[in-house]
Amino acid sequence: MELFNHHKSKIEEAIKALGQRNYFTIYPESPKLYQEDADQNARNYISKTMNNNFDELLQAKSDVYIGEEVSPFLQMGIGVKYPAYHVETLITNAQFANKSWNKLSVEARTGLLIEALERIKSRFFDITYATMHTTGQSYMMSFQASGPHSNDRALEAVIEGYIQLTKYVNEVDWIKPLGKYELKIHKNFKAISKGIGLVIGCSTFPIWNTVPGLFANLITGNATIVKPHAKAVLPIAIVVAEIQKVLSENNIDINTVQLAVDTIDKPITKELAEHESVKLIDYTGGSVFGSYIESLKNKTTFTEKAGVNSVIIDSVVDLKSVMQNIALSISLYSGQMCTAPQNIFISKHGVKTNDGIVPYEDAVKLLTDSITGLVDNPKAGAATLGAIQSDITMKRVVSIKNIGGKIALESKHINNEEFVDARIATPIVIEVDRSQVEIFGNECFGPIAFVIKTDNVDDSISLAKKLILDKGAITCGAYSTDTDVMSKIEEEMNEVFTPVSFNFTGAALINSHAAFSDLHVTGGNAAGNAGFVNAEYIVKRFVWVGNRFA
Amino acid sequence: MELFNHHKSKIEEAIKALGQRNYFTIYPESPKLYQEDADQNARNYISKTMNNNFDELLQAKSDVYIGEEVSPFLQMGIGVKYPAYHVETLITNAQFANKSWNKLSVEARTGLLIEALERIKSRFFDITYATMHTTGQSYMMSFQASGPHSNDRALEAVIEGYIQLTKYVNEVDWIKPLGKYELKIHKNFKAISKGIGLVIGCSTFPIWNTVPGLFANLITGNATIVKPHAKAVLPIAIVVAEIQKVLSENNIDINTVQLAVDTIDKPITKELAEHESVKLIDYTGGSVFGSYIESLKNKTTFTEKAGVNSVIIDSVVDLKSVMQNIALSISLYSGQMCTAPQNIFISKHGVKTNDGIVPYEDAVKLLTDSITGLVDNPKAGAATLGAIQSDITMKRVVSIKNIGGKIALESKHINNEEFVDARIATPIVIEVDRSQVEIFGNECFGPIAFVIKTDNVDDSISLAKKLILDKGAITCGAYSTDTDVMSKIEEEMNEVFTPVSFNFTGAALINSHAAFSDLHVTGGNAAGNAGFVNAEYIVKRFVWVGNRFA
Repeated sequence: MELFNHHKSKIEEAIKALGQRNYFTIYPESPKLYQEDADQNARNYISKTMNNNFDELLQAKSDVYIGEEVSPFLQMGIGVKYPAYHVETLITNAQFANKSWNKLSVEARTGLLIEALERIKSRFFDITYATMHTTGQSYMMSFQASGPHSNDRALEAVIEGYIQLTKYVNEVDWIKPLGKYELKIHKNFKAISKGIGLVIGCSTFPIWNTVPGLFANLITGNATIVKPHAKAVLPIAIVVAEIQKVLSENNIDINTVQLAVDTIDKPITKELAEHESVKLIDYTGGSVFGSYIESLKNKTTFTEKAGVNSVIIDSVVDLKSVMQNIALSISLYSGQMCTAPQNIFISKHGVKTNDGIVPYEDAVKLLTDSITGLVDNPKAGAATLGAIQSDITMKRVVSIKNIGGKIALESKHINNEEFVDARIATPIVIEVDRSQVEIFGNECFGPIAFVIKTDNVDDSISLAKKLILDKGAITCGAYSTDTDVMSKIEEEMNEVFTPVSFNFTGAALINSHAAFSDLHVTGGNAAGNAGFVNAEYIVKRFVWVGNRFA
Repeated sequence: MELFNHHKSKIEEAIKALGQRNYFTIYPESPKLYQEDADQNARNYISKTMNNNFDELLQAKSDVYIGEEVSPFLQMGIGVKYPAYHVETLITNAQFANKSWNKLSVEARTGLLIEALERIKSRFFDITYATMHTTGQSYMMSFQASGPHSNDRALEAVIEGYIQLTKYVNEVDWIKPLGKYELKIHKNFKAISKGIGLVIGCSTFPIWNTVPGLFANLITGNATIVKPHAKAVLPIAIVVAEIQKVLSENNIDINTVQLAVDTIDKPITKELAEHESVKLIDYTGGSVFGSYIESLKNKTTFTEKAGVNSVIIDSVVDLKSVMQNIALSISLYSGQMCTAPQNIFISKHGVKTNDGIVPYEDAVKLLTDSITGLVDNPKAGAATLGAIQSDITMKRVVSIKNIGGKIALESKHINNEEFVDARIATPIVIEVDRSQVEIFGNECFGPIAFVIKTDNVDDSISLAKKLILDKGAITCGAYSTDTDVMSKIEEEMNEVFTPVSFNFTGAALINSHAAFSDLHVTGGNAAGNAGFVNAEYIVKRFVWVGNRFA
């Protein structure tokens, strides 16, 4: 209760924010607002950490250390090795830890988890470099996405958990009047955790996509095994280490959270996922494995798989600012965000603007010029693109040229002055016809965009909708100055459970989903079966049981 | 909004009650608290209704009328016929109705649904006779279970829906400070209904088990098709008719709720359930069909299947009052409640009481004597037992004699003075050994109880727990005066997501689960995947979608 009381004002603010959904954070997103020497200390930390065994975890030592992460900026192995464990060892540890973790009060767990977030906050800069050299995100994105934005999402999960778990009184004397006398029954209401949780991380957002499920499991009383992507371990390893430290300081079994590292050649994910003691699985990654996870019997699953995000352009005030915005959305982290747009639908009749109709061809040229302007800008280009996380994505960017359609903009290399060996590819833009669904109808992860020439805006809407029904989508961008068209887009997209961002220009980016305000992934279409962070994301992790005492 | 405001004080009270979980109802459970002539009017109503076409529904007329209900009290067909429809007609109607129903505000839907409950309240006595002559429930149980208790559960679903759907502001200006300027984005948050709901009723509690899912669907914006059990249509037909009347009076598409009747020989349930437009399925009934429902792809399902309920007897103050309580729980509606206990676990060393140890054999005799005393009591017997709903259950009571074990009490017929032809069987009690799991390890629906002789209370607990892991349970009764034993039972049963009722005697019955206080079915074991009425029961019926406007 001490930690709960210590963080009480934060908790109260956050509960209110969750309903209000206005801007809210308790972790500043500007690196400048942290200690001055934090960045230099983190540079020293990352130098020391590379090519060494990672020894910050409090979980039992192992005889075997493994690790095969490669920095997309250096294109060389970072040489960090982590302890490896048998699956049965991890499960046994988690089962034991679970017995006491589920017995803690909701307030105790809430306090501990928020304290852990404070400790993680003190590591934001270490996490930044760890994220850069595993994911290829730029410095700023690494800081924000793995630092404050991740902590926000984790806090959101803790707060929604606290709300759900305190929904009922713990105990009540139920008194029923029965004429001359009354029937009195004492009752309690317990949220029983489902069991052991497994959170399977992805290679591009190793913290942001992992901590919501992890903290949602923990607040609801489920000891959890974190299985990061073999190529993006270090960022989440720091997070797990900090949680374990807080657990240890409070005499709680540190195996309440365990890190389970594997390699691409000897993966342990399926063995973990299929283990009968694992009851909850959170997963972010490709659709094939995601659908396998969803199909497992007797598991509660939370998936974020691939979707195909569309932008529908109908009419605008100023097309240039629109195309600059889309160019940034496509280029940011080289299109490796799950919220990046892939398909841009434009009518063959062009785009209505305040200065008249811009023909289709000119609209496409405005888009490709905007991308070129952005990536060629020496101040912005490298920082926007970051690096390509994996060889597979790099190969896709190369091979996509032969997929068909008309190449409107070639992908190319640009220089990153700080990291001369960085794996870089600027976006490729391919024009296709409305009929070429076999091309634009699949997710092409990475800096790849298609412009689809449609018959008119209704055609754009119906093509985008059909694609969502088939493949799912996390988000949809739309540009229209016509309120009827806007209403139609909103209705049609919402009907297939896809949110729409209208008329975004300037600093408004469809890629960004802010905690305590934007619901990330609706869970209603094929892009995933769960969303950050709504009530369903929490209540499926435990079971209410009420006992009665005469 | 008019209806919402009209019922506002009820809504506010109910919201508070839902968190407090003390005794709460707005529908009195004593028939005496309703108009004096209500019962006589209902007798007239049921006479007129029998052997006629049911013409109260506002849904489109049909050329074909069907019906095959049989009164367990009269053992003759009641002759009521209902309009029959093609599945595609029902689906098309529901799809059309859904468009406008989902567009109504949460407040509008809440007001309409509570108004519908008021109308249903005015039919409680009609519903009572309809329930008696389809289910075989006694007059008093028919009144309470299908009347006020059902309305309570329906109201609970509406209120939990209202809470969940008003969790976020509808709209907000999200304003993010960005140093010298700020980024302002307007956002809305919409709860989009999943689609068409199907609620599949059961033969024993045609209203109580149907309205929670029905009202949960409706409050969350899903037009719903009610498919009652072919042998228990009339009670829910009255409910659907009353809802349709309220919809019609408010110029809302009455196909928002449709009744879909079929026959045992030509069932339409699978065709409805498998239809791609049906997204939500609520089901109460046997486990085999329930597991089929759960296995359907791309459906959200809420099931209450069969479980095996246990009573563990360790130590008591007064064994006679305990056995009288258990006898009542077993006998009430002839063991046809899903909460009725089937397995009574007693140690071979007997039962500790305030007056010393009662040997096992004497304890069993106290139980069978209590049952005999109850069923032979001319004032209580017939009213407690009601009638056996189906021939199948009747046949089971007869054939169970040959299952093995030692018959401690034979089933027999007793007279019901009002209904001389009633299908009646008093409980049969069979003693078995702890090893005879093949006998007591299955649900034997109806007035059938097993007493299992165990090694000691730990053995009783572990046998009961193993059975829950295997078959599920809705509830567990336990008797102990030892706090350590009580804690152990609570922990072990809760771990398999089963609530425990301790030391119930007198008016406290483990069979009763009160709305706004007891959570009926946890959803955590094989007895069902959902519970009345928790947040999960609501939030899985819709999807949050948030749109953003720059």
